[in-house]
Amino acid sequence: MAKGKGLTPRAVDFSAWYNEAVQRAELADHAPVRGTMVIRPWGYGIWERMQGALDRMFKDTGHENAYFPLLIPMNFIEREKEHVEGFKPELAVVTHAGGKELEEPLVVRPTSETIIYAMYAKWVQSYRDLPLLINQWANVMRWELRTRPFLRTTEFLWQEGHTAHATREEAVEETLGILALYRRFMEEWVALPVVTGRKSESEKFAGAQETYTCEAMMQDRRALQAGTSHHLGQSFARQFGLTFQNEEGTESYAWNTSWGVTTRLIGAMVMTHGDDRGIVVPPKLAPAQVVIVPISPTDADCSVVVPKAHEVRERLATAGLRARVDDRDHLSPGAKFYEWERKGVPYRIEIGPRDLARGEVVLVPRVREEGGKRKEFLPEKEAVAGLPDRLGALQAALLERAQARRERHTYRGVERWEELVEILNGPGGFVHTGWSGDPAVEARVKEATGGTLRCMPGPDFGSESVPKRCIGGSEPAEVEVLWAKAY
Amino acid sequence: MAKGKGLTPRAVDFSAWYNEAVQRAELADHAPVRGTMVIRPWGYGIWERMQGALDRMFKDTGHENAYFPLLIPMNFIEREKEHVEGFKPELAVVTHAGGKELEEPLVVRPTSETIIYAMYAKWVQSYRDLPLLINQWANVMRWELRTRPFLRTTEFLWQEGHTAHATREEAVEETLGILALYRRFMEEWVALPVVTGRKSESEKFAGAQETYTCEAMMQDRRALQAGTSHHLGQSFARQFGLTFQNEEGTESYAWNTSWGVTTRLIGAMVMTHGDDRGIVVPPKLAPAQVVIVPISPTDADCSVVVPKAHEVRERLATAGLRARVDDRDHLSPGAKFYEWERKGVPYRIEIGPRDLARGEVVLVPRVREEGGKRKEFLPEKEAVAGLPDRLGALQAALLERAQARRERHTYRGVERWEELVEILNGPGGFVHTGWSGDPAVEARVKEATGGTLRCMPGPDFGSESVPKRCIGGSEPAEVEVLWAKAY
Repeated sequence: MAKGKGLTPRAVDFSAWYNEAVQRAELADHAPVRGTMVIRPWGYGIWERMQGALDRMFKDTGHENAYFPLLIPMNFIEREKEHVEGFKPELAVVTHAGGKELEEPLVVRPTSETIIYAMYAKWVQSYRDLPLLINQWANVMRWELRTRPFLRTTEFLWQEGHTAHATREEAVEETLGILALYRRFMEEWVALPVVTGRKSESEKFAGAQETYTCEAMMQDRRALQAGTSHHLGQSFARQFGLTFQNEEGTESYAWNTSWGVTTRLIGAMVMTHGDDRGIVVPPKLAPAQVVIVPISPTDADCSVVVPKAHEVRERLATAGLRARVDDRDHLSPGAKFYEWERKGVPYRIEIGPRDLARGEVVLVPRVREEGGKRKEFLPEKEAVAGLPDRLGALQAALLERAQARRERHTYRGVERWEELVEILNGPGGFVHTGWSGDPAVEARVKEATGGTLRCMPGPDFGSESVPKRCIGGSEPAEVEVLWAKAY
Repeated sequence: MAKGKGLTPRAVDFSAWYNEAVQRAELADHAPVRGTMVIRPWGYGIWERMQGALDRMFKDTGHENAYFPLLIPMNFIEREKEHVEGFKPELAVVTHAGGKELEEPLVVRPTSETIIYAMYAKWVQSYRDLPLLINQWANVMRWELRTRPFLRTTEFLWQEGHTAHATREEAVEETLGILALYRRFMEEWVALPVVTGRKSESEKFAGAQETYTCEAMMQDRRALQAGTSHHLGQSFARQFGLTFQNEEGTESYAWNTSWGVTTRLIGAMVMTHGDDRGIVVPPKLAPAQVVIVPISPTDADCSVVVPKAHEVRERLATAGLRARVDDRDHLSPGAKFYEWERKGVPYRIEIGPRDLARGEVVLVPRVREEGGKRKEFLPEKEAVAGLPDRLGALQAALLERAQARRERHTYRGVERWEELVEILNGPGGFVHTGWSGDPAVEARVKEATGGTLRCMPGPDFGSESVPKRCIGGSEPAEVEVLWAKAY
């Protein structure tokens, strides 16, 4: 990929397009250690807005932030049997510190259940100390073999919520409440429609009783797991002695939940909204929602046009918008247009001397709506006054477009094995079928197509009808499930 | 320390008082790995407000946030000679990952100069790419032998700014600009007066050309280094090939700065403002600025008083204040008063049935001003309307009190060696003397008193007069310096 050239088109090689789009938008860059990346300011600015929105939603629902240590004693990780089986192959281990070999190796957290519930055990005595609703923003490390920026990196940033409750019911309510919160966040902020549902035994979090997930469809029709919420039951509480005295004075184990979303959401945003010109950032997440490019062929123009650009920026800021002026003098207007398009800025305003003489500016949307204009000449005041609505409309349009695309590639009530295989091996998409609950069927689907059981949308999750038969044969279906190839 | 008891008085054992105050305020707790801690929600809430304020100040001065990897190849750390000498003894090292021994050990970042300047070398080509002004919020690890919550822990949270400039002058300007920003932040938000100045050769950051520092005086008259800003010269640029083409087309090395403040500031806050009843949180940093305690001897009172408390909370929220109602029904009002005092909440409002009948509430400040009242009975509206001003006055009073305390224990123009030794070994404090620049004098002071050269306030940093002679003997003084025992 040469610097000045366009991206590989999505239709030619979606994976190459993704890597180029991320690099060229300056979202991230490869770092020296295999599988790690640097999140550059433009990417981090998007993450800051995701963080801000989620953080407010967590706090509005009674959660508080805290910070737990990066390093976890190896024996902590090993206590919960399923947990260690799931995570041990991916651990990064500190064996030496302060110039000496450590007596016990320390694990760089892949997730923090063990250390957090060990601390909760110190803090919780009575039912009055419950529920305990804590979230942490942190870095975690999982030594993955195949990595891609944002989608799978050895280190990533995330939030992990960890709660303790007096009853099973409360824990289930929290698990599902957070799932709904994630869904709302993904739709309203990332313009990312998701199917929510429960994971099968083979796909659930290592150590969880039940895992619920948000599954989104990317433009290549693969599924991306965008966030998960786990009901952990009492297994961690048992291993770490997290007990409380209930109202009757009896000692009981607490019920736990944990849930997280990661910087992977930036990858989901790229693969959902991007086009062959680069990424598209939903207005609510954009570090700059409007870029203003002054066009000044002569120095005399420059002295009029540039101050005007800053004036318009101030007006937009007053209207609550994030706007930037690109007044770099060594780049042509075309080069600037190209750069901000690649970075996915929702709107561009061009101000040239002739427009100015007419009291007009040129407004150019990053994404042209069905039948919309490529550029509009508008009186300056009208352009400024109209931008908040235009940005709101774009935010909504991005969600609708993604929803429509998902619907076009969703197959419901599929009953024949061959049809499932043909879809997953052919055009790809989300396929809803019946399932008996037999893990052997999951294994067969994986072998035949590489696809996996993404989730059981179930009656509580908007699923319309449970098919009669399992897709794997003649057994009756227990539940409806969603199959797809996945990231 | 029994749970129900008061704290060890500061005058009896300041160090025991500190540890108890931190624990009892639920700022932090010891974690299982030696030298690590958990920052609990009350402590983290204070850190969030520090972060918010600093982050706005950084952005207002043109800096952007990014995120660089946790793990750094050992050979990166080793490239800058002074840097590796300073940090090698404290490194935590990942030797195994993904079930295998790594070919090259990876260091858990103790600071990120090396990896960041390696990335800048990829991004910077021309003078037009400069200055590059990036900050990161991150965790870092330094394997310290003697640790104390917030003051010195093996892992801590901080921000680290890293900038690259085309000229030495710009880099120096950035270094000093950030030093001034830190000073403003510490005074305005933490109510922490600081002496700013340059570090001597023996105390500067490993790899820096010059280190500037903010030194605060704690209540035990020891100094605490509260933040540092480094001019790195071109040494990292040389090691990592961070070059740019200047306006004349010649290839030059960039000039770098780095600067950071950490969660240590929470320790500074505790040791500056706390009293024998616990910590005191400056209003601008307090997660709750006002706690409202409904007092309801009977159930009938409860049904009137509790809704009233929530009504007052709403009014305070409307006025822009952070207020909480403590309506837990298993604790006596006295137990609640005690708990919120320990946590340092600036104001308490008590609402009882008799007060309510008179249309009054009781207002109790956490810190009583000279001649101020212990509690005031005020009409509800007056109490609510007056609180923003009271909180502003308290914020200012905390800074003034700390400044006055520092002045009482500051000795200027000290010329006799014996006097310096007597002060540092006796009452303690900040001692200003002349210094020839000879490191042997620093060594002698350290041997005789345990004190160190905290900084050279110098003419640019508000110092009034340079003494004539060096405190170490008869040589002429080159500069004025500040000596103190330090954390």
